[in-house]
Amino acid sequence: MTKAELKRLTSYKHEKYRNNDNLFVVEGVKMCQELLSSNYDLIAIYANEEITDRYQVTIITDEELRRISLLSTPNKAYCLVRKPQSVAIDYDNCPILALDGIKDPGNLGTIMRLADWFGVKDIVCSPDCVDVFNPKVVQASMGSVFRTNVHYENLQHFIKSLPDDFAIYGTVVENGENIYQSKLPPRGIIIIGSESFGISNEIQALVNHPLTIPRLSLHLNKPESLNASVATAIVLSEFKSASLRTNKK
Amino acid sequence: MTKAELKRLTSYKHEKYRNNDNLFVVEGVKMCQELLSSNYDLIAIYANEEITDRYQVTIITDEELRRISLLSTPNKAYCLVRKPQSVAIDYDNCPILALDGIKDPGNLGTIMRLADWFGVKDIVCSPDCVDVFNPKVVQASMGSVFRTNVHYENLQHFIKSLPDDFAIYGTVVENGENIYQSKLPPRGIIIIGSESFGISNEIQALVNHPLTIPRLSLHLNKPESLNASVATAIVLSEFKSASLRTNKK
Repeated sequence: MTKAELKRLTSYKHEKYRNNDNLFVVEGVKMCQELLSSNYDLIAIYANEEITDRYQVTIITDEELRRISLLSTPNKAYCLVRKPQSVAIDYDNCPILALDGIKDPGNLGTIMRLADWFGVKDIVCSPDCVDVFNPKVVQASMGSVFRTNVHYENLQHFIKSLPDDFAIYGTVVENGENIYQSKLPPRGIIIIGSESFGISNEIQALVNHPLTIPRLSLHLNKPESLNASVATAIVLSEFKSASLRTNKK
Repeated sequence: MTKAELKRLTSYKHEKYRNNDNLFVVEGVKMCQELLSSNYDLIAIYANEEITDRYQVTIITDEELRRISLLSTPNKAYCLVRKPQSVAIDYDNCPILALDGIKDPGNLGTIMRLADWFGVKDIVCSPDCVDVFNPKVVQASMGSVFRTNVHYENLQHFIKSLPDDFAIYGTVVENGENIYQSKLPPRGIIIIGSESFGISNEIQALVNHPLTIPRLSLHLNKPESLNASVATAIVLSEFKSASLRTNKK
């Protein structure tokens, strides 16, 4: 690798330089394989051994990999990928998921993996959510970043623009409808609030189906809440299992 | 603070010194308040302002706090706590949760918070799980570390020693019983496998009720799995909601 190339790749540790070149970084053999089986536009692969015979791989040393890698323990392969063009939201694939101020990269990645598992196609993020191409988000998604469409929108405007027959579900820690005892018609949007503040007031005002996961704790009023990705897991599981339960033994 | 004290507290960044003195560290105002309302044995509080009038607080400077803190952005308060004595497992509070090789501190902390939410009292960890008093586990638990009993046991021996009428549930990615269509009598233990390898072979051999969360993805065989804490969320939600659903509208 030339010095200039090493310098350019190292610069991609910073969001600014990735954005300038409209690309993001994918690391690790497994994640790079997920990438190669996606329709994402690969710019270049750098690895310390041949990991594919379908694309040209630039072989680099362990030391070069260590220098360009964003991981504390780099794993063999590093890919540069062009950011995808935005696609239209599929209003017929419901529920849609909306995230209001999710800041933790691990949470966003985990939520994408979960959405992917349950067949959710579109995730709408408020502009203050963490960037979906943040390297920690990409890694935590375990490849689901290539299979879910993430959109950044002013949530208030977006929700107001939804079709009239859309239900606006929102998860609240207390005083919502018990999620286990609610009918959950899928045509709608599920809003998940931020780790620290829940759903913001102006968005909460638009919710017409507040949902609560009942706290069955042995301790009064504790814990105060569930982790955002864990709450999303329970809510999506409830929506997606409703049709399967009709056969419940 | 004397130099010797500063040095001693700084040494507690290392597990070895915490173990030598049989204590662990709790940081942040909110977590310290959770601690003060628990029955855990407080050794000392260091803070840059008075945060309680019930205990003696050693006032320290921001710089001192920065030096002893394990957090990248220290938050006002730092407590030393004695590790709790081990308590007996309550076999009448079911299901019990067992973790087989959970290595990620965030996952263990999140699972404790979830167990706390759903009224699970005991979590049995294989010896290769991350230490429950690892600072990242303590922080991710958001105080639930004070309200759940975590035991480290040889899981194989432990499971074999369970009462005969205990069901041994295990989560598997494929070919288990559809969790949404299974009766889930709570008297039993639920085994959650490691992030990378799932349930180990010798433990899997003891499972008599394998459970699978159906993958409803739009993509064939993708994603390969769910995050361990998210899978635990869905499984616990199913067990704990069974009795609530009898009233489902």
